[in-house]
Amino acid sequence: MKRRGFLKGAAVAGLAGAAASSLPAPAISQGIKRWRMVTTWPKNFPGLGTGAELLAQLIEKGTEGKLQVTVFGGGEVVKPFDSMDAVAGGEVEMGHGAPYYWKQKAAATQFVTGYPFGLSAQEQNAWLQYGGGQELADEMYRAMGCKFFPSGNTGTQMGGWFNKEINSLEDYRGLRMRIPGLGGEVVKAAAGQPGTLPGAEIKPALDAGEIEATEWVGPYNDLAFGLHKNAKYYYYPGWHEPGTTLDNFINIQAWESLPDDQKAVVTAANTAVNQLVLSEFVARNNDSLKTLITKHGVVLKQFPDSVLAGFSVLAGQVVNDLASSDPMSRRVMDSLLGFRKEALAWTSLSETAFTAARFLYSYSEGN
Amino acid sequence: MKRRGFLKGAAVAGLAGAAASSLPAPAISQGIKRWRMVTTWPKNFPGLGTGAELLAQLIEKGTEGKLQVTVFGGGEVVKPFDSMDAVAGGEVEMGHGAPYYWKQKAAATQFVTGYPFGLSAQEQNAWLQYGGGQELADEMYRAMGCKFFPSGNTGTQMGGWFNKEINSLEDYRGLRMRIPGLGGEVVKAAAGQPGTLPGAEIKPALDAGEIEATEWVGPYNDLAFGLHKNAKYYYYPGWHEPGTTLDNFINIQAWESLPDDQKAVVTAANTAVNQLVLSEFVARNNDSLKTLITKHGVVLKQFPDSVLAGFSVLAGQVVNDLASSDPMSRRVMDSLLGFRKEALAWTSLSETAFTAARFLYSYSEGN
Repeated sequence: MKRRGFLKGAAVAGLAGAAASSLPAPAISQGIKRWRMVTTWPKNFPGLGTGAELLAQLIEKGTEGKLQVTVFGGGEVVKPFDSMDAVAGGEVEMGHGAPYYWKQKAAATQFVTGYPFGLSAQEQNAWLQYGGGQELADEMYRAMGCKFFPSGNTGTQMGGWFNKEINSLEDYRGLRMRIPGLGGEVVKAAAGQPGTLPGAEIKPALDAGEIEATEWVGPYNDLAFGLHKNAKYYYYPGWHEPGTTLDNFINIQAWESLPDDQKAVVTAANTAVNQLVLSEFVARNNDSLKTLITKHGVVLKQFPDSVLAGFSVLAGQVVNDLASSDPMSRRVMDSLLGFRKEALAWTSLSETAFTAARFLYSYSEGN
Repeated sequence: MKRRGFLKGAAVAGLAGAAASSLPAPAISQGIKRWRMVTTWPKNFPGLGTGAELLAQLIEKGTEGKLQVTVFGGGEVVKPFDSMDAVAGGEVEMGHGAPYYWKQKAAATQFVTGYPFGLSAQEQNAWLQYGGGQELADEMYRAMGCKFFPSGNTGTQMGGWFNKEINSLEDYRGLRMRIPGLGGEVVKAAAGQPGTLPGAEIKPALDAGEIEATEWVGPYNDLAFGLHKNAKYYYYPGWHEPGTTLDNFINIQAWESLPDDQKAVVTAANTAVNQLVLSEFVARNNDSLKTLITKHGVVLKQFPDSVLAGFSVLAGQVVNDLASSDPMSRRVMDSLLGFRKEALAWTSLSETAFTAARFLYSYSEGN
C-alpha cells in the first residue's frame, strides 16, 4: 500500500521504455522497472483482486525487486472493461481480467475463458498447458497487442441468483440477467436478455432493477458482493462457466523488453497464480455457502435436468454459430472439441468414478 | 544433457557452502551455485522425471542461471528410496519423489501424498495451499532435515493391474501386490501382501513372479513401463491414490543459504510444476489408455461397488489406527478430515454436478 501511494504521487509513465527516462536516478542505476497492472476487479476483491496482487508480489520477489508491479482496482486508472485498451495502447504495462471481456476485439477469447458444458478447471488447464490452448490464445492476444497468460481459475461456478424458481427454459424468457460470454449467448438463445457488467456494477444494477438475475462467480465471491440481498434462489451447477480462466495480459513491447530471466519469473509466477487462485476458491467456497444458507436464508437449488439438457442443446448451436462466423473461433473450437472428447473419457474413469466411490461409505462423521 | 555431462565430469561437491570452494573461479565470481537433484524416478520418465527436469529448468531460468540444478534418475547417485537420506545428510541438495516413500522416517508423510478415499488433486492442492497442509508438511520435513514443496500431482490414479478379475475383497487374500503408503495398509487389512517398490523395479518383480499385481500411476506412466505385458485386467478408480502429491525436498541448510529472490523463484517454480505435471497427466492419460486397450488388448474394468465400499471401511480403520499411534498423524488427520468434509460438499455442487450435467446431451459428435 505504501508503494502504491508513492507511485500515485509520482508521475507514472506508460511503457517500460518511456518510464525509464522519468524514473528517479536511483531506480535507473539499480535497473528497476516500475509497471502498473490495471484489473477488471475491485481492489483486493477476494480471490480475483487478491490473485492479481499475489501475481505482482511473486514477480517482485522473484526478480529481486527489479520488476515492481503496482496493482490497481477497476476504475482507479481506467474503467474495468477499458483495461485491454489501456494495456494494448501502452498506457499501462499489464492487466488482469477474464478473456471473454475482450470478445468485441476477438470473439474467440470467449472460448479461452471456458465455454458452456465445456471443460472443468483441471481439464481447462490441461488444454491450455498441454493441449494447444496457450498457442491459440497467444495468437489472439498478440493480434490485440498483448502477451497472454492464464492467471487464475475460479473452478466450476454457480449457476446464478434468481428471484423465482427455474423450472423450465421458459423461465428465462425475457429475463434481464447479467451473464457474460458464451453463457450469455445461450441465455439469449433461450429468449432471455443477457448483459455483461463488471463485478462492481452488478449489485447497483440489481438494486436499481436494471437486471433481475445475475451470475457472478461462486459463494466466496458472491457473498462478498451481497448478491443474496436481491435474490434468494441460488442455483447450481454453473453449466455456463465450468472452469473459468482468468487472464494476465501484458503490452507486447513491454513484454519483449524484459530480459529472459524476468520473462521466466513472470511466466512461472502466472502458472503458480493460476493454481493458487483455484485452490483458494476450492478452500473457501463451502464456508461462504454455509453462511449464505444459514445466516442469510438463501435457498440452494439444483437446475432440473430438463433445463440443463435444454441449455446444452442451445449451447451446441451457439458454439457452432460462433465457429462458423469467425476463422479463429473455428480453429479454437476444433481444438477444444477434440481435447474435450479425450478429457471426458479420462475424467469419467478417474475423478468422476472416484468421487462417486467415496460416497459409498460414510468414511467418518465428516462425510 | 550437455550440462549434465559436464557436471558428471567435474568434481561436484555436496552442500552449497562446501560446493562454493570447489567450484572453478568463473563460477564463484559470477555467484553461480550448482546443485544436484536426486529423484526416485527413472531419468526423464514421463510426467514424473520430466517434471523434475522442468523444475530444474524453471529454477535456472528464473535465477538467470545463478542456481543451476542437475537432475539424476533413481540409482544414478543413490538408490531411489535413499534419496531423502542423501538430501537430509547433505550429499546432494535436492530431491524429487513422493511423500509416502519416507513413511519410515515420519508416518504422517503418507497423508501428505494423499490417502484412500481422501481428496482429489484439486482438493489436495487446496488443502496444501489454503487449508494448513503446507505448514504441517513443513514441520514433518524440517524434522527430517528438509524444506518441503508440493511438486506435481498425478491426478486420480488407476486401481491397478491384475491377472484375474476382482469380484470381492476375498480376491485380495494372499495377493502379492506392489502398492505403497496407506493404500498398501488397506490391502494388508484385506489379508493381501502389499509391498513398496520404486517404479523401475516393478516390471522386473512382475517378470520374476515376486509380485502378482501392481498399481503404479495411470495409463500414461503404466504404458511406459509395459505393465500390460504381465497382467491384462486394468481396474479403476484408484481409490487408494485419488490425487497423489509429489514432493521436492531441499536440504534445510542449502535452502536457508539461498537469497530471498532465489527462494521466491524456487517456490514459484514448484507451484508451477505442481500444476503443470497434473495438466500433463490429464492431457496424456486417455490417449495412452486407448493404446493399451486397442493395441495391447488390455481389459478395462471398474471395481464393483461392494469392493470399493469394503475398502472404504478398512481405510477408515487404517487411518484411525495410524492417527492413534502417532501424534503428528493425529494432527494431520484431524486437519484433513475437517477439510475433506467442506471439500466434498463443495465438489458435489460444482465439479460433480457439472460433470454429470454435461452427459445429459451429446454436445457434439465428440461426446
